[in-house]
Amino acid sequence: MPLGEEKNGACDRSIYVNNPHLESMTEDILYHFNLGTSTHDLPAMFGDVKFVCVGGSPWRMKSFTEYIAKELGLSEPNADYPNICAGTDRYAMYKVGPVLSVSHGMGIPSISIMLHELIKLLYHARCTDVTVVRIGTSGGIGLKPGTVVVTKQSVDSAFQPRLEQIILGKPVVRSTELDGELAEELLQCGKDLAEFETVIGNTMCTLDFYEGQARLDGAFCSYSEEDKQNYLAEAYAAGVRNIEMESSVFAAMCKLSNLRGMSFKYTS
Amino acid sequence: MPLGEEKNGACDRSIYVNNPHLESMTEDILYHFNLGTSTHDLPAMFGDVKFVCVGGSPWRMKSFTEYIAKELGLSEPNADYPNICAGTDRYAMYKVGPVLSVSHGMGIPSISIMLHELIKLLYHARCTDVTVVRIGTSGGIGLKPGTVVVTKQSVDSAFQPRLEQIILGKPVVRSTELDGELAEELLQCGKDLAEFETVIGNTMCTLDFYEGQARLDGAFCSYSEEDKQNYLAEAYAAGVRNIEMESSVFAAMCKLSNLRGMSFKYTS
Repeated sequence: MPLGEEKNGACDRSIYVNNPHLESMTEDILYHFNLGTSTHDLPAMFGDVKFVCVGGSPWRMKSFTEYIAKELGLSEPNADYPNICAGTDRYAMYKVGPVLSVSHGMGIPSISIMLHELIKLLYHARCTDVTVVRIGTSGGIGLKPGTVVVTKQSVDSAFQPRLEQIILGKPVVRSTELDGELAEELLQCGKDLAEFETVIGNTMCTLDFYEGQARLDGAFCSYSEEDKQNYLAEAYAAGVRNIEMESSVFAAMCKLSNLRGMSFKYTS
Repeated sequence: MPLGEEKNGACDRSIYVNNPHLESMTEDILYHFNLGTSTHDLPAMFGDVKFVCVGGSPWRMKSFTEYIAKELGLSEPNADYPNICAGTDRYAMYKVGPVLSVSHGMGIPSISIMLHELIKLLYHARCTDVTVVRIGTSGGIGLKPGTVVVTKQSVDSAFQPRLEQIILGKPVVRSTELDGELAEELLQCGKDLAEFETVIGNTMCTLDFYEGQARLDGAFCSYSEEDKQNYLAEAYAAGVRNIEMESSVFAAMCKLSNLRGMSFKYTS
């Protein structure tokens, strides 16, 4: 399916895979989910999915499923939600009604494997109109701890809204903008709830938790407290409000596959 | 502790942390292990560790612990090895005798968080003479499936033995060479066992499993089968024998912390 055609049209919100090789494969194995098109009836299992909620921790994704089941009035007494990917320990996946909940581990490579297979899963299941929501924790910049940051753009460590990927040894740059309308809606929800501070801002995505995020408590640290504060001040001036490790490839892959994506994170 | 002093001397194989800030911290919390210097007696728990075996999958690291316990004659009937990091779902950790076994998830960022905290753990526990062994699976190039590749150097997608890390927004290049003596010893062990083919070679480390490794079955693919074969042939010509997603930062961080590191992987 070609990219770019009616991409934002309300009438065409099907999932794009942009890979001509998939057509000629007799079977598509989603290795890291332990699912496949020959072994599982993906349209029957997932055809009704409208929301996918993703986060790093498998435990948290299970708790989220229990929470959302209650919120949607879909929970039954003593209900247990089985892990759909129980045959592997790479990711965990739960489903209740139209909500799928999937863990993605830590970092760009880990979430990227999951998203490749999730996009193919939703495509094979013929899902339409899917929104993917990323939840989790992050380090805040210049914010009261506990503030929720809704991501407008994901930026790299030079504060640019771009993801450089290496394909066949050559760099390819992808945009990391998220759905602006969704972000504004989410900000409004947070304000209406009034249970916690909610702000909209840029999210810096790094490949490293310690040195990459200017922390002073890693195994190696070659900079001073002052260097750290200067770097974080530069980030703040560039509109960065939180730092984490997956948003850039999340934004890029949502955009490429026609998924409405939003990301919001609790900051510490 | 300064880097570079008697780094390869047989008489000084203590663990290096190269972070002056650690000295002034009253407590060091290893967040992603759910361990800390105030809450746990790290020297008592880990002081006897001489080997750390790391791999992506938590299940595999538990199986490895059961296997190595038997091999070392340390297993007891119905022994169960508790997960030392049971308070978190980020990583799993098991110990039997002098062997610690830790999972690291998938990709450079995920293993890098684990290694920062592992290096600090071994440092706080005052371990000496520690060898870290990486095991797992990888995609082979020009090899019979099932061959084991011992890594000589980890190379990037342009086949260079380097890891570029971003620190305070600026690139820092680190060497990705592993312990050559250990690699040769391991190769000889494989030959003596004669149960499977063992080769020594370069390992290419990528940030992406699908497009980054020239696979044709991701959600996106902009190249042909021929492009893929050409790229893999170039990699082979540069000495690459397998592709995976963690070796570069593993090699770099072992070198920086004075750990003897080796990596070998089963190829499919």
